[in-house]
Parts: sequence; structure tokens; C-alpha cells
Amino acid sequence: MDTEDLLGQIAFIKEIDKLKYIQRKTKLFNSERNENDAEHSWHLALMAIVLADHSDAPIDVLKVLKMVLIHDIVEIDAGDVFIYDMIKSHSNTDEERVAANRIFGLLPKNQAEELIAIWEEFEAGETNEAKFAKSMDRLEPLLQNTSNNGGTWKEFGVNYDKVYEKKSVIKNGSKSLWNYAEGLINESVAKGILKK
Amino acid sequence: MDTEDLLGQIAFIKEIDKLKYIQRKTKLFNSERNENDAEHSWHLALMAIVLADHSDAPIDVLKVLKMVLIHDIVEIDAGDVFIYDMIKSHSNTDEERVAANRIFGLLPKNQAEELIAIWEEFEAGETNEAKFAKSMDRLEPLLQNTSNNGGTWKEFGVNYDKVYEKKSVIKNGSKSLWNYAEGLINESVAKGILKK
Repeated sequence: MDTEDLLGQIAFIKEIDKLKYIQRKTKLFNSERNENDAEHSWHLALMAIVLADHSDAPIDVLKVLKMVLIHDIVEIDAGDVFIYDMIKSHSNTDEERVAANRIFGLLPKNQAEELIAIWEEFEAGETNEAKFAKSMDRLEPLLQNTSNNGGTWKEFGVNYDKVYEKKSVIKNGSKSLWNYAEGLINESVAKGILKK
Repeated sequence: MDTEDLLGQIAFIKEIDKLKYIQRKTKLFNSERNENDAEHSWHLALMAIVLADHSDAPIDVLKVLKMVLIHDIVEIDAGDVFIYDMIKSHSNTDEERVAANRIFGLLPKNQAEELIAIWEEFEAGETNEAKFAKSMDRLEPLLQNTSNNGGTWKEFGVNYDKVYEKKSVIKNGSKSLWNYAEGLINESVAKGILKK
């Protein structure tokens, strides 16, 4: 590692501090305080560590951790898109790709390439690691909304069908976690915090 | 994984949300807003990923990530101790050990044991992974304070000798990072944001 590499790495480390200001729609557990992207990414990483054995397919946990830790960094430039937003798609937009190139591009070339590739892999959602990482990303707000008496579902009028559709992604990573999640969704309908 | 294991894991995932409320003394980069422990842990994880090659000894990056992601979880019960606090030591107190047993103890037994052992290993600071993780933990606030015109050094009247002593720990993980850090400390004295 030469000095120029280190300076690029330090520039990246400083730049990503901005993720702490990107507010998500979801609130912390039993709370009215919005979660930010850095907190969210940390939480997904811990979830991946303790839930890894629920993955249906063998996974490289280190890669999953890299995925969840970096998956929202593009939002520093592109902003957070609410998962139930019907106008702006959450999927891999041009804006997000430009952001990835700018932000990861602060790093030495080989690292920039590695992290952009990991981010693209997460977005594509096709590998075992990406599927499991996406399960984490969908499970956390489900736990938050059920702890918050409906949370963003109530706040933004999201109904059962939409929630069920979006949360089904959990199934691609883990049948046992999906089984648990499905139970939570049905329980939410029974409790009246999610409308059918 | 049986249902009881999953329920313990979910209880742990909910409990650690509280880390997002634990305020550190240090502020975000170029900011007056305090950093919380979850944001700090996320930032150290990203630093470990991009700076891993600066480690003088070979390291298991997955273990380093686990260390930095969980290293402050005990503060949910024990609170954040300022590194320059002369009354309450930051080292592995009984209170922190009780907290570790309670919080990690929510997990299935084998996971609780693994994470408590990793936390103890970090605290002891003797393995290559612990040394590198501690380098990250000391480097982040140095970057923050230099970006904040002295930050907590000025706010709490911390002088060069104390900073130099605490930051020297970086050397145990990486000579190149310590070389960079030492330069930042000396530059801070020259700029008048750190008193000798």
C-alpha cells in the first residue's frame, strides 16, 4: 500500500460519513425516531451474523457483510427511495450507478472495482449472498413496523398485498425466515395494524 | 435451527436497536452532531474493509468485522465511557461483563459464547485481529477531531501527551496507519488545534 492509496482510502472514509444523515422512512423499534442508513446498515450486518445459519444455500458471510454494509452508500448522492414508492423505482437506476462510481471511485482502483461489483451483485439479487442480504434488508423493517403498531404501513397507507409482495423476497434467502415473516404479516392483519 | 433459536435471535436483534441511542462524545465529520454507537460501529467496519491491507500481521477480516460490529454493544447497559475519562476506566469492567452476558445471552448458547469470546478477545487486544480492530477504533475519532477543528480535544481540554498515548495503540495494528496518524497529530499541534 502506498501513500496515494491510503489518501484515497481516507477520502472514502470521510465521504461515507454522510450516510449518517440519510433518513429512512422506517422508525427505530418502538420509536418515533427515523432510522438513518448507517444505523440500518449496521443492524443488517448484525442480523446477517446471527441469522446466517438460516440461509437455505451455503453463503460466504464476509461477502454478505460487505454487501449489507455498503448497499446504501449510493444514497449519499441518490437519496433514499421508499420501498413502496410507485413512481421512483428502487431498482438500480442510472443515478445510483453514477453515485457508485463517484463514491467507491475515491478508493484505489482495485478496491473500487471490488466494491462496485459487490454492490451490483447485491442489486441483481441472483447469487446466494445477494439473496440472503436482501432477506435481511426486507426483514428489518418488518420487525420495526410490527414493533411500531403498523409504522410506515399505517403512515403511508400500505396494504397487505403490497407488503406480502415485497416481503416475499425473504423466501429467496431463507425458507425458515420467510415462514417466521409470513406469520408476522398474518398476525399484523389479525391485530388490525395491516389492512387486507 | 429450531424455532426457539430463532426467537432468541429475534430478541437479540430487537434489543441491540438500543445501541442507536448511545451517544459518543465525538462528533460526526465537520459537524456538531454527536455520533452514536451504531453509526460508529458501522464506520469502523467499513474502515476495516478498506484498510485491511495495512495490517502488519495477517488478519481474518470476518473476525475483525464481528469485533468492531459488536464491540460497543455492552454500552447498552454500561454506557459510553469517554476515552480520556480519568475516573471511570474504559477497560473491561465488571459492569461491561454483566452486560455482555445479559445481551449476548439472548442468543442461542453457542452463538452467545462465540460473540462473548470475540468481545473478550477485542477487549484483551492481544490477537492480530483485536490489535487491528483497536487501530480502527482509535483512528476514526482522530479523523473526526482533526476535521472538527480540534473537536473533543478542545471541548474537554485534552492535550498532546494524552492524545499521543491513546493513539499509539494504532501502531500495534499497523505501522503505516500509525505513521499517517502521527502526522495528523503533529499537524494538529502545528495548526493550534491540539495543545502541547
